Amino acid sequence: MMYNDTTLKMKIRILEVSMIEKYKEENRMNDAKRYDVVVERLALRGAKLEDMAQITLDLQIKYLPSLTFELCLEHVQKVVMKREVQNAVLTGLELDELTEKGLISEPLAEMLSSDYGLYGIDEVLALAIVNVYGSIGFTNFGYVDKTKPGIIGKLDAEGKKDGKCNTFLDDIVGAISAAAASSIAHRFAK
Amino acid sequence: MMYNDTTLKMKIRILEVSMIEKYKEENRMNDAKRYDVVVERLALRGAKLEDMAQITLDLQIKYLPSLTFELCLEHVQKVVMKREVQNAVLTGLELDELTEKGLISEPLAEMLSSDYGLYGIDEVLALAIVNVYGSIGFTNFGYVDKTKPGIIGKLDAEGKKDGKCNTFLDDIVGAISAAAASSIAHRFAK
Amino acid sequence: MMYNDTTLKMKIRILEVSMIEKYKEENRMNDAKRYDVVVERLALRGAKLEDMAQITLDLQIKYLPSLTFELCLEHVQKVVMKREVQNAVLTGLELDELTEKGLISEPLAEMLSSDYGLYGIDEVLALAIVNVYGSIGFTNFGYVDKTKPGIIGKLDAEGKKDGKCNTFLDDIVGAISAAAASSIAHRFAK
Amino acid sequence: MMYNDTTLKMKIRILEVSMIEKYKEENRMNDAKRYDVVVERLALRGAKLEDMAQITLDLQIKYLPSLTFELCLEHVQKVVMKREVQNAVLTGLELDELTEKGLISEPLAEMLSSDYGLYGIDEVLALAIVNVYGSIGFTNFGYVDKTKPGIIGKLDAEGKKDGKCNTFLDDIVGAISAAAASSIAHRFAK
Repeated sequence: MMYNDTTLKMKIRILEVSMIEKYKEENRMNDAKRYDVVVERLALRGAKLEDMAQITLDLQIKYLPSLTFELCLEHVQKVVMKREVQNAVLTGLELDELTEKGLISEPLAEMLSSDYGLYGIDEVLALAIVNVYGSIGFTNFGYVDKTKPGIIGKLDAEGKKDGKCNTFLDDIVGAISAAAASSIAHRFAK
Repeated sequence: MMYNDTTLKMKIRILEVSMIEKYKEENRMNDAKRYDVVVERLALRGAKLEDMAQITLDLQIKYLPSLTFELCLEHVQKVVMKREVQNAVLTGLELDELTEKGLISEPLAEMLSSDYGLYGIDEVLALAIVNVYGSIGFTNFGYVDKTKPGIIGKLDAEGKKDGKCNTFLDDIVGAISAAAASSIAHRFAK
Repeated sequence: MMYNDTTLKMKIRILEVSMIEKYKEENRMNDAKRYDVVVERLALRGAKLEDMAQITLDLQIKYLPSLTFELCLEHVQKVVMKREVQNAVLTGLELDELTEKGLISEPLAEMLSSDYGLYGIDEVLALAIVNVYGSIGFTNFGYVDKTKPGIIGKLDAEGKKDGKCNTFLDDIVGAISAAAASSIAHRFAK
Repeated sequence: MMYNDTTLKMKIRILEVSMIEKYKEENRMNDAKRYDVVVERLALRGAKLEDMAQITLDLQIKYLPSLTFELCLEHVQKVVMKREVQNAVLTGLELDELTEKGLISEPLAEMLSSDYGLYGIDEVLALAIVNVYGSIGFTNFGYVDKTKPGIIGKLDAEGKKDGKCNTFLDDIVGAISAAAASSIAHRFAK
């Protein structure tokens, strides 16, 4: 039997739609619409996905010597596609920004603007992000939250300036980087 | 040997101080100063500790038939003394109030004002509260969050009105009640 | 231009492979090999995926009146495909079975065989399962863990018999059912 | 008025009992009976409380230059007094020991004996331990789990030997040390 272009295209299109449907269903925890908003909000606060991909690369390169920056960036993007992650990011950034604008009431304002060590809710949101790729990410999150590599250290220092608040942002950046590292570990699971 | 009043009082005072010191140290996760602020903030939003004590009583009475309202109230107070709980409450209430004032940006504002079912960060904060008395509280939290007894149902309904937002408040109230139930269970552990 | 069967099949195959590759990558947290082992282990302990699908259906039918048993079963299967879930199930069931065989040492054996209310580690594993679809599942888990519908009640009762231990199993079943409910909620997100 | 020895002793005893009662109540999450069992079990596996106190000291000394080893040990002891911690420790050690004895079935046995990186349940139990002093401990746990200072590195290396399994033990030791660091941070809260 022979097919012309139209028949072929139609057959392929049907296959494509069913595949995409399956793929989309699998991705039902994703929210592509909000993805752009979240990426932009993070960038406006000084945290680009590329900065997080670099942290992810540094975390995983010793386990996967052939790992590339591009693959890390892809996994950071996947993490930020998750609805749970987006909600944690939007909530944390909102609190940082409202603190800078002086719209948070006391005694919370004082805790947020000073990045009070016993506050803990920034870590709680970070855990919600890390959890998206399971419990193996806790370790990487704790490690980068302590050692503050790359952009995390920069954001932490910036947050100490007058009028600036990065209390949630630095934990969010660490959590996304750690979740991407977990995602890569699952991807190359033996 | 005989003691006069002064000697006795001094000896008792020394004992008392050392005991209080020990007690206080044990309570180092508490923050008495902020306790009053938190109780007042909850009351201003319509949630009195007594309302939570009633939910706690209803949860535990079948396991402890001799349980009283007063004991439940005492345990609710102990939960609210914990720093981790206070921080979760202050953060959640702030987000509810800022939503009502129209100070939250989109797309978070829409999720908070509509108590969007897939938001999840309200549950994340609730878990941080419940965790204070260990994992046995998860069950009670989930149960009251679903069945919405007493004040929880009232707050949930009120939150649906125009201009009102109780997205975090109803979970917080459920979490404090559940944590107090755990606290009682630990207290009467066999 | 015209294509013959072979060309068409080849073109479609190339598309298919790339789609499957994408799909697989997305599913890198899944472990299909262990899926069969986990399903069989659960069934041997008296918990079939169909029993969990029924609980999921009962939980979600009021939000989605057109929900079917088949769709619930499909989501239960997806939950059990996740590596994190499989590991929690295998660990919990092992502890139940070793308790029955008298291979657990004291004082843990006594806590497990009596399903001690303050043990808590069964809830900790359940949370790890629920977390796979985010924090919105906590509520459903707590609710079914308390109300013990269908197979959960049966397993709980059976676990109280001499020589039987279902301390982890009933929480695992509740957690998988609750996670499947979350998965459905994400799938039909507005 | 004058008191004799007996009156004094009685008066002091009454005060003491009421104080201890209050203290005990506050400590209702503790379990002193099991404390000795847990300490012994940890020691038999090669992990002494002193080893954990040393990790805690190294974690906190930069924030509290006057911190002593003795105070760290005291806080490690307090962490191990908590029921939730004891249950996590007893469960984890049991799984390590049963793995060594060849009593765990496949495919769990293989994951436990090889300390499989994507297993994750060891981290889940560790989190339950860390949570006892709130979310601020996540960071310290992740850090020591990654850098493996002192006894953690030793246990990790030992666990790689044939017939040995420390899959849970090294996470437990890290979690207790991190929780003790949190406890100290709360104690010296400003």
